Amino acid sequence: MTFAATVLSLYPEMFPGPLGVSLAGKALERGDWRLDARQIRDHATDRHRSVDDAPAGGGAGMVLRPDILARAIDAASPSDDPRPRLLMSPRGRPLDQALVRELAAGPGALIVCGRFEGIDQRVIEARDLVEVSIGDYILSGGELAAMVLLDAVVRLLPGVMGNAESGAQESFETGLLEHPHYTRPRDFEGRTIPDVLTSGDHKRIARWRQEQAERLTAERRPDLWHAYRAKRPDPGPKKA
Amino acid sequence: MTFAATVLSLYPEMFPGPLGVSLAGKALERGDWRLDARQIRDHATDRHRSVDDAPAGGGAGMVLRPDILARAIDAASPSDDPRPRLLMSPRGRPLDQALVRELAAGPGALIVCGRFEGIDQRVIEARDLVEVSIGDYILSGGELAAMVLLDAVVRLLPGVMGNAESGAQESFETGLLEHPHYTRPRDFEGRTIPDVLTSGDHKRIARWRQEQAERLTAERRPDLWHAYRAKRPDPGPKKA
Repeated sequence: MTFAATVLSLYPEMFPGPLGVSLAGKALERGDWRLDARQIRDHATDRHRSVDDAPAGGGAGMVLRPDILARAIDAASPSDDPRPRLLMSPRGRPLDQALVRELAAGPGALIVCGRFEGIDQRVIEARDLVEVSIGDYILSGGELAAMVLLDAVVRLLPGVMGNAESGAQESFETGLLEHPHYTRPRDFEGRTIPDVLTSGDHKRIARWRQEQAERLTAERRPDLWHAYRAKRPDPGPKKA
Repeated sequence: MTFAATVLSLYPEMFPGPLGVSLAGKALERGDWRLDARQIRDHATDRHRSVDDAPAGGGAGMVLRPDILARAIDAASPSDDPRPRLLMSPRGRPLDQALVRELAAGPGALIVCGRFEGIDQRVIEARDLVEVSIGDYILSGGELAAMVLLDAVVRLLPGVMGNAESGAQESFETGLLEHPHYTRPRDFEGRTIPDVLTSGDHKRIARWRQEQAERLTAERRPDLWHAYRAKRPDPGPKKA
């Protein structure tokens, strides 16, 4: 089964955009996933093709009409479509690597991209849209958020990354931020590669990397560090 | 002073991409901000134009060489460049609306986009790169992360959004998730707009929206809710 993404947007011409290049783009060309970006405005019914209206109760901006978005959703995703229906929204469940893995294991996703005005609450409820947020900041629309989600998902699909880059050691897959990396040249502006990494002692290297990852995580992300520690019983005092 | 973004990437052709459309694109056309995407590979020195090498100490993937990236940074950003130098990285400071505002108030940014292999730690230190993360998930590269950061920043630049959409009521600007929105039609598949919103009583509407925002935040994001409560003294029992 090929992962199938359908994106509903007022700017479908943004797609595939960055997703047509590099890793995701090569995977798209090979058919490792499918992408279909559709124009919500095609489901407008007046001659101005308008899709939004003033917010009930007053206030700034415009709100996407529920009836038009519902028609766009129904046309793209029949009621027996097994794919989750996502709405990119800062009010949503924060995207994390666990949700990325869950989506990558499924049949695909229908992704609704709002623009900053907002979307009528009733269509969120009537069409079971799951709100997903890529972070605690405001974008001009959901399109870049949808691309971020798809890029994160696509790289985990079968065949997309080689075994050499399986990602098992990456940030978040271990619950820790990643250790520092070094490569040639050995001397860069008087800064050298840590001796342990050129020692050839693989046990010491693995231990050093683990310690660095733990130190970085504790320093930079106490939230992740506490979650990591809570999952592991205390190993007791370290052996010398 | 115009906000000036310089992006260093192995895929500069991804830019402006989505940033050339809609709000950010119109602002770019008007000259409300500038974008310059440059190819890191132009600073390679061998005839294969290689930019990466095997990680010191072994392991999967390849690491971007410090010397080549340093040359790309120095060519794009002389030592008296007042702009912050950012590296999009899952190990970085989480992007939030406070950091977006801080960047939007400054002269611009130099943004380095890694690819999944990683970047030599020494160039991060030698060139004072500030690592910034858009969320706890892994992308195939920093380009989409850079676009997300720039989109969030650009919409706050002077002249980009009209007053009508000043964003003051949006998620995170108040410390709360946004209240639900409604618009026409009044009846959508038997679902109606909450009466309060059509009452014309602006005080009641404001109170209802505040209560909805608080309820949503408490339900969905206890972390934001606790931070919001901690900043406000308890108002005491509510008046009837």
